[in-house]
Amino acid sequence: MDNEGLALRVGIAGAGVIGRGWVKVFARAGCVTTIYDKKPGQAERTRRWFLEDLQTAVGKGLITKSAAEQQAYNVTCKAIESAFLEVDYVQESGPEELETKRSIFTELDEVTVPSAIIGSSTSALNINEIAKNLPGSKRMITAHPINPPYLNPAMEVFPTNSVTPQTLQRALQILRSVGMKPVVMTSFINGYIAARLQAALMREAINIVQRGIATVEGVDTMVRHGIGQRWAFLGPFGVNHTNADGGIREYYTRYRRTYLEIMKDLYDEVPRFDTAMVDALGEQTDQMFGKVTVKELVSWRDERVAELIQSKVDSEISPQSPDACKEEKTF
Amino acid sequence: MDNEGLALRVGIAGAGVIGRGWVKVFARAGCVTTIYDKKPGQAERTRRWFLEDLQTAVGKGLITKSAAEQQAYNVTCKAIESAFLEVDYVQESGPEELETKRSIFTELDEVTVPSAIIGSSTSALNINEIAKNLPGSKRMITAHPINPPYLNPAMEVFPTNSVTPQTLQRALQILRSVGMKPVVMTSFINGYIAARLQAALMREAINIVQRGIATVEGVDTMVRHGIGQRWAFLGPFGVNHTNADGGIREYYTRYRRTYLEIMKDLYDEVPRFDTAMVDALGEQTDQMFGKVTVKELVSWRDERVAELIQSKVDSEISPQSPDACKEEKTF
Repeated sequence: MDNEGLALRVGIAGAGVIGRGWVKVFARAGCVTTIYDKKPGQAERTRRWFLEDLQTAVGKGLITKSAAEQQAYNVTCKAIESAFLEVDYVQESGPEELETKRSIFTELDEVTVPSAIIGSSTSALNINEIAKNLPGSKRMITAHPINPPYLNPAMEVFPTNSVTPQTLQRALQILRSVGMKPVVMTSFINGYIAARLQAALMREAINIVQRGIATVEGVDTMVRHGIGQRWAFLGPFGVNHTNADGGIREYYTRYRRTYLEIMKDLYDEVPRFDTAMVDALGEQTDQMFGKVTVKELVSWRDERVAELIQSKVDSEISPQSPDACKEEKTF
Repeated sequence: MDNEGLALRVGIAGAGVIGRGWVKVFARAGCVTTIYDKKPGQAERTRRWFLEDLQTAVGKGLITKSAAEQQAYNVTCKAIESAFLEVDYVQESGPEELETKRSIFTELDEVTVPSAIIGSSTSALNINEIAKNLPGSKRMITAHPINPPYLNPAMEVFPTNSVTPQTLQRALQILRSVGMKPVVMTSFINGYIAARLQAALMREAINIVQRGIATVEGVDTMVRHGIGQRWAFLGPFGVNHTNADGGIREYYTRYRRTYLEIMKDLYDEVPRFDTAMVDALGEQTDQMFGKVTVKELVSWRDERVAELIQSKVDSEISPQSPDACKEEKTF
């Protein structure tokens, strides 16, 4: 805790698509960031991706040239012995296999100082299994992003059973200080929160299309030009709260019967995800987008989301702390 | 079909909260709009609400004074005998009771020209029941908005069994010409599309909170700062399509097992919506918003959504026709 006023020092363990997203999150917030990946050349490839991304941002006028230079200076690749020597936080984003994760965490436990917190990007494994019997399990957490993390501040945090409230608070503080919005889970559930909510909506959507009630484009329209517009600003409870003058209590009381009826009637049938389904939905999706490629769509989506985030930052009704490591004094 | 180049003429039957939202939709698009409500004074109250809303828009510089004057001139209140004499389209937004709707539709069938299409804002009733045995059932449809319709272009359209494809196309054309994005349903389902998708997500969200896995604020964070951000631009299928380089086919194939596992594991338990649940969720919602009132939240939400819509109009990847009646030549 002797680094007050200094930049946060972060280690990236595993520099694939998820890991490189994290590099951008930490570097953008002013952190001194070291990258390590077991695969030869991978850390350096990710650093180059990051540098090119910086160039693009400068070209678009999103950041100044000197800010980009500072970020580039802060991001380096190192061998495992030196990459994590002096870091406050490690973000692990290795392959999604228990034994691989266990061996990475065993190594990280050895090469980091005991005060460092180690977070895993795992989207499916239980951190208690990953950290089982490791001396440092009390500083290990799941820190699962919605990819890419630099566009989705929301993330799930799930600590091992031996993490103390103080350590958990420190982890949350670190993640908030880089602009993330960590949400703590108190027990392990399949898929965590975001993927479950998404799967619940997708399951109903797929059932509606497979029954021929509406098309892929029809369902997507109801979301993107309807209910999805509010969810960009308020979550499901916030939306319910704003749907009646008296707030969520009035709304749930007044529409009790309607919701009971609809919720009982939802299509709980699990889609098969077999070739027939994938082809049918794929064909309708192709029709919806015409000649627009996936790459063009992704770039359009990400630009829109970046604008959206900016509009939220400018107008947040319950302001949150800004995203700069240097303003965070207490880790 | 002799009114080429002329403004669309629209009748509003029932001028409560939903009806007044429709007044704004049609007036904004340049339609000549007449309002009727059985309740004495109600049509006039809605017209005053509309005029005040116009004043606010002028004050904020959202529209010019002369555009507002033109809209105000186009919107009038009339008795039922004269309100619907010469309209191309009627939007009915009366009380949500079958017999009441049937009696309104019986009257509308008599006072409109046979070429007029009559749409109902009903969110729960089957239009085939409302229009049963009426001579004009072949021109009657459900035209259900997500309230308020001037901020949510997406809407469900469900025609009676006797509506011809030509009439359905004309109805869709009229609704599109005023900026709406109608989605056709081929069979009747409880809650239609949007409310079902919303209920599917809400059911999972409520279960997660009631089991103590995350808080109301935690769940809302995962949506508003995560998955909800994309749904403002792409629906569930569009999002899946952009989650793998190879599009939705690759995504569904690669994550087949993950989705099967999560979807089988979803909490299908229907929440009770009893006092205990409403109080518990109400309390957590109050904590989340602190001193910010429902009124302030609604106004913040609606301003953000309006900005969002503008950003989408400016950047739509598959451009849609603009929202002006006068540009629509063929109804």
